[in-house]
Amino acid sequence: MTQNIYDDEEFFQGYARLPRSIEGLEGMAEWPALRALLPELRGLNVLDLGCGYGWFCRFARQQGAAYVLGVDVSERMLARARASTQDDAIAYARADLEKLQLPGRPFDLAYSSLALHYIADLGGLMAKVRASLVPDGRLVFSVEHPIFSAPAQPGWSVTPAGRKTWRLDRYLDEGPRSTDWITKGVIKQHRTIASYLNLLVRLGFVIAHVEEWGPTQAQLVEHPEWAEERERPPFLLVAARRG
Amino acid sequence: MTQNIYDDEEFFQGYARLPRSIEGLEGMAEWPALRALLPELRGLNVLDLGCGYGWFCRFARQQGAAYVLGVDVSERMLARARASTQDDAIAYARADLEKLQLPGRPFDLAYSSLALHYIADLGGLMAKVRASLVPDGRLVFSVEHPIFSAPAQPGWSVTPAGRKTWRLDRYLDEGPRSTDWITKGVIKQHRTIASYLNLLVRLGFVIAHVEEWGPTQAQLVEHPEWAEERERPPFLLVAARRG
Repeated sequence: MTQNIYDDEEFFQGYARLPRSIEGLEGMAEWPALRALLPELRGLNVLDLGCGYGWFCRFARQQGAAYVLGVDVSERMLARARASTQDDAIAYARADLEKLQLPGRPFDLAYSSLALHYIADLGGLMAKVRASLVPDGRLVFSVEHPIFSAPAQPGWSVTPAGRKTWRLDRYLDEGPRSTDWITKGVIKQHRTIASYLNLLVRLGFVIAHVEEWGPTQAQLVEHPEWAEERERPPFLLVAARRG
Repeated sequence: MTQNIYDDEEFFQGYARLPRSIEGLEGMAEWPALRALLPELRGLNVLDLGCGYGWFCRFARQQGAAYVLGVDVSERMLARARASTQDDAIAYARADLEKLQLPGRPFDLAYSSLALHYIADLGGLMAKVRASLVPDGRLVFSVEHPIFSAPAQPGWSVTPAGRKTWRLDRYLDEGPRSTDWITKGVIKQHRTIASYLNLLVRLGFVIAHVEEWGPTQAQLVEHPEWAEERERPPFLLVAARRG
């Protein structure tokens, strides 16, 4: 059973104050890069793994998706998603992604934003996702970048010359990491880039694009405080297709 | 023109003392992992980009390869390769890999060990390599891991708790890095994992396996001094096939 930190009161309140919770997709720094990996959504059946407040589900429908199923483990996130949605072609379902049962309906696109790094049995989930995709169906997801999730104690050091460096260790030591993000003891699963990609290849996916996300120069003009994200990328984005 | 550091006297003498220079492939910690990515070599036409002393060329022939072409920019490395080889089915050619002209003969396997991170125009080289491969031909290579090559000043820090951490910065800032390895001012090209993989995908390769190499537990028993390589991997290994 995955830790359901999003139903923790302190976490939920803290998460609700993030730009991505208030502004939705436009509040996600990595959204333009993630969006660029998506296929044309018109007419597609879409699965959103870890849909949260449902921002992406509604976006997909605005773009013409035929049907969207959003799955999340958090009752509270789903309650807000449902309250924000008036659309019969969007369905929300509560499920632990580790034990997901997918409907018979095949999907054209499986999408996931910053959820899969919570999943211990990612191989089991991805096998089910692949089986639910049409031939040539797409998988597009983001996770915390392994460089970000690896360290025993994530953080920066400042060199004598004033340069910020990320204190990296334990990169090849895969498994759970307990970090203090919004609240104490949030459990994420660290795996390497190679593990993510080889898992997909093993399941029969074809890697279409890999992105180690950092802010663009244009974004830095607007958000100079994001500069450190270019020293070590915070997000890994992957696009693949069912081979 | 790529910097030809291997013909620098100080570098050449220092390089000649490394285990991989004295013991050949068995002196390369990452060799078992790299070997595991190779296809069965019997009967294959093989291209070795940055063949150095020719260890892999001779290995390929021992494994039954039909023909091996080893290419390197260093006169001195090739002189030693030729002196160590008595085999008409191995040819050595001197060439700057940035300006490589490949023969009409198609190859079944292109191999490269720790050479491609010297190449500025990797796209140009890989396009030529792809064109020289038979349909379904294989590409297997190793490079310095981008985590290793990224920092402005590569090195370790020790936390107050005694933990070694790698000082990572400039990961997303691709381009040349001047480092002091064996001699001063060795120029390598830093690029991200995503850049390596997307370049291959763009050229029509299919990613078959990615490995962020670190020592196995068995290797650590024999070489406990390699433990730090598990904190941040030193090598990136990639296997792909011409799609």
